[in-house]
Amino acid sequence: MTQRVISAVVALAIFIPLLFIGGRPFDLMVAIIAIVAYYEILQMAKIPFPSWRGIIGLITMMLQLLPSYYLALLPQEIDYMTLYFAGLAMLLIIMVFKPEDINFEQVGVISLAALYVGRGFHLLIETRLMGLLPVIYVLIIIWGNDTFAYLVGRQIGRTPLAPKVSPNKTIEGSLGGIIGAFICSSIVLYFNNIFGISIMDNLILALILGFLGQMGDLVESSLKRTYEVKDSGNIMPGHGGFLDRFDSLLMVLPMFYFLIPFLGA
Amino acid sequence: MTQRVISAVVALAIFIPLLFIGGRPFDLMVAIIAIVAYYEILQMAKIPFPSWRGIIGLITMMLQLLPSYYLALLPQEIDYMTLYFAGLAMLLIIMVFKPEDINFEQVGVISLAALYVGRGFHLLIETRLMGLLPVIYVLIIIWGNDTFAYLVGRQIGRTPLAPKVSPNKTIEGSLGGIIGAFICSSIVLYFNNIFGISIMDNLILALILGFLGQMGDLVESSLKRTYEVKDSGNIMPGHGGFLDRFDSLLMVLPMFYFLIPFLGA
Repeated sequence: MTQRVISAVVALAIFIPLLFIGGRPFDLMVAIIAIVAYYEILQMAKIPFPSWRGIIGLITMMLQLLPSYYLALLPQEIDYMTLYFAGLAMLLIIMVFKPEDINFEQVGVISLAALYVGRGFHLLIETRLMGLLPVIYVLIIIWGNDTFAYLVGRQIGRTPLAPKVSPNKTIEGSLGGIIGAFICSSIVLYFNNIFGISIMDNLILALILGFLGQMGDLVESSLKRTYEVKDSGNIMPGHGGFLDRFDSLLMVLPMFYFLIPFLGA
Repeated sequence: MTQRVISAVVALAIFIPLLFIGGRPFDLMVAIIAIVAYYEILQMAKIPFPSWRGIIGLITMMLQLLPSYYLALLPQEIDYMTLYFAGLAMLLIIMVFKPEDINFEQVGVISLAALYVGRGFHLLIETRLMGLLPVIYVLIIIWGNDTFAYLVGRQIGRTPLAPKVSPNKTIEGSLGGIIGAFICSSIVLYFNNIFGISIMDNLILALILGFLGQMGDLVESSLKRTYEVKDSGNIMPGHGGFLDRFDSLLMVLPMFYFLIPFLGA
């Protein structure tokens, strides 16, 4: 437990200042987190990392991660989908020549890992480019969600939510989490609402993003269940891997980023 | 053999006129081929089709297939990648609630199948929108490639190309195919070169597209090998499935479409 607290403090002492600074230092930190998270999925799936298929997957992931202004430097025909498909085609060609190393299912796993991690963290960089508040808003939703889900679930949790994937999660806890996300984000918006998000918008966002945050968490549990491991990694003593810490973000940010244009005045 | 010839004649008697007509009838035919090809991959992977995961994969595939002018009807934030990621997120959520139906690897397989089939045939529709000649050019490259690879390989083929995936293919045959693709496409361009493709461009295209055509074929062999089946389907008696007939196209068209802006005068 002490170890858990220490590593959380160390991690936040790095993450929070870089989140405030933004720019290249923040992008670099996000890239490092993404690389570790990608590596953790490969390790769970027992795909050796210094391997052609692992490296092509890593490059595919990094190209998805890239802030969009880098793509503007390339011919306009090249979008994220083109880059993704190119990576996927290379994995398929490796499968042809090294069928003992990689089959169709593993091409699926590597390309899925590259997209899920790459796009999730890409949108963290893009959201930070819009400002500090949007990122803080999302983090507060996620943390409010997690905390209240835990507290409410422990008090009154009875009905299992997804018993095969995560036996301790309950529907009561899930609803408590969403209400907590709404309360916490309302407090943030009360003090600083540059988005012009109305209370009704915030309720809808808390519902959708809170639900997706819980799904992100369960996707990761499901991933661990598929590969029968306890933690995604051990980079943070007492916390498991980076993937364990950022799992909610990977589901929440794509939806939040998609909804941004529909928000505010 | 007679059966094989009859079904080839029937198929071409449908395909060729619709290819010339273009427009909605052609788009519809391509959509039907894509649906069958997607279904064939699911069948090989033993994923039951009338199932939530199969249907969400199908919708994801269809959204990738959609001609790009339909996307213009949607808010500009929605691009192919957004639609693809949304499909993938839904598959991951199904995995959370029905882990006995679908695990992370199968999400990978379904999403990979949806993208590979969807984008390949999408680009067939897009290429046809540019005109008849680009499609004919690509088909001549593929057919010239296949025919010469077979003829040359049978005569002088010695060195195996990818023995574990397709034991009968040889490097000699592969080179013969690429030379054949160059010869056949040069003949087409001699009579009608609306692209302004130079002989040097055509040589480079024949090299790249010929190689990728052979890869598309081998990807499909590898897919069959992964799932230990002989044919991808039995919709065309004597020819196997639709996927068997269109496998080269799925690798060739994305590269051809990407290279178009760099071609011609």
